[in-house]
Amino acid sequence: MTGVQQEGDDQSVSLYLLKQKMADFAKERNWDQFHSPRNLLLAMVSEVGELSEIFQWKGEVPKGLPDWKEDEKVHLGEELSDVLLYLVRLSDICGIDLGKAALRKVELNAIKYPASKNYGTNDDSTAEMCG
Amino acid sequence: MTGVQQEGDDQSVSLYLLKQKMADFAKERNWDQFHSPRNLLLAMVSEVGELSEIFQWKGEVPKGLPDWKEDEKVHLGEELSDVLLYLVRLSDICGIDLGKAALRKVELNAIKYPASKNYGTNDDSTAEMCG
Amino acid sequence: MTGVQQEGDDQSVSLYLLKQKMADFAKERNWDQFHSPRNLLLAMVSEVGELSEIFQWKGEVPKGLPDWKEDEKVHLGEELSDVLLYLVRLSDICGIDLGKAALRKVELNAIKYPASKNYGTNDDSTAEMCG
Amino acid sequence: MTGVQQEGDDQSVSLYLLKQKMADFAKERNWDQFHSPRNLLLAMVSEVGELSEIFQWKGEVPKGLPDWKEDEKVHLGEELSDVLLYLVRLSDICGIDLGKAALRKVELNAIKYPASKNYGTNDDSTAEMCG
Repeated sequence: MTGVQQEGDDQSVSLYLLKQKMADFAKERNWDQFHSPRNLLLAMVSEVGELSEIFQWKGEVPKGLPDWKEDEKVHLGEELSDVLLYLVRLSDICGIDLGKAALRKVELNAIKYPASKNYGTNDDSTAEMCG
Repeated sequence: MTGVQQEGDDQSVSLYLLKQKMADFAKERNWDQFHSPRNLLLAMVSEVGELSEIFQWKGEVPKGLPDWKEDEKVHLGEELSDVLLYLVRLSDICGIDLGKAALRKVELNAIKYPASKNYGTNDDSTAEMCG
Repeated sequence: MTGVQQEGDDQSVSLYLLKQKMADFAKERNWDQFHSPRNLLLAMVSEVGELSEIFQWKGEVPKGLPDWKEDEKVHLGEELSDVLLYLVRLSDICGIDLGKAALRKVELNAIKYPASKNYGTNDDSTAEMCG
Repeated sequence: MTGVQQEGDDQSVSLYLLKQKMADFAKERNWDQFHSPRNLLLAMVSEVGELSEIFQWKGEVPKGLPDWKEDEKVHLGEELSDVLLYLVRLSDICGIDLGKAALRKVELNAIKYPASKNYGTNDDSTAEMCG
């Protein structure tokens, strides 16, 4: 694995837990009325914009963000989370089991891009990769 | 809760599991070299575009997508998953524990929007909500 | 035509003029150093997020925005402009003549979607349209 | 100016012309019925995704795209155009004079970021710039 700071990760946070928390959050505020699929999609796009804003003037950024201040990393974590939370909520409202769908998609990607045929290569003609 | 099809959800899929699967996937293909933060961010934006494409000509869509064909829902699940998988990978490469960050953000949102003061209201002046 | 408020439109604003203004703006501030293609692309994505934020909790919005307050429309004009200005700047920095490319694309779209075969129809199988 | 390939640019292409062409295009196909504000916004987000896809695995890209093949540049011009055309159409349907709004926004930006105080600097605390 190439991940950074893997030690100490909270391994217990499931998509199901986040889905429940978002549903409870909306119910407690009577916000279900606002959570239509396209409202949530646009809210997610808005958060993707805020995430992009963090990276927009930085030029290329190395893995692990070695030069970032702690408060920048905290801010980044918040914006990544905002995207995730709306994505989880959107999936729920659409009746999609996001966890199950994601596991299935990883398997489909493995079939589409066999390791033996794609080792170290990136098909520029499609500009695609695991997607 | 307002969720749809909650029975039978795969409750075991954690962000940590998906992070591991994405890291293994990249390593097996020697794709770590392509997985810089901004490459992954743009790949995620691309997938958000594919997700938006599904909804773009539909007008308002009711919760649970009652009129969608099964293959449309499967396609939707794939695009939601693509966004999620790049988001998970981006977080990993940035050294952010996404699960921990998301739980913290839910708590911050609960403080920012107390249920008692925000019941059924949506502050149009900011157009914000749990974000 | 279906456009709204077409009377009184400023018909003289060309993409070339906006390109010049953005180039002058950057030069006067010595900001060319920040205006790399991917920086500008992410800045544009950020502005698309701000544009989406305006629409995110509104549900379906009728043409002409009859119920919007004047300051909301002004704000909308600013966010639409931000997307446009970064798009113009991105095109310039990439060496693309955006005006010429746009005219060509309209012609390609007319060939791809002949009026006689696409009258009033929207091909759901591709979910595409003039794009 | 810093622009590339400025000689030979088609200086006559106005936002008003593109607005007219898009309105005619829609009318000839009876597609006005699909062109609601949020449909067009999501269509634009979809095109932003296709634009991002072109840049996603490239790492940092130098100005003028010196190493890009001609067909890649043509493709880029098409995707930039798709974003522009939907942006123009969205503005029209919302009753916003995009050309006038853009000129006004450039002036507002000049006031917000006086050249004398912002020469060569980029305020990291806001990560903002001409937007």
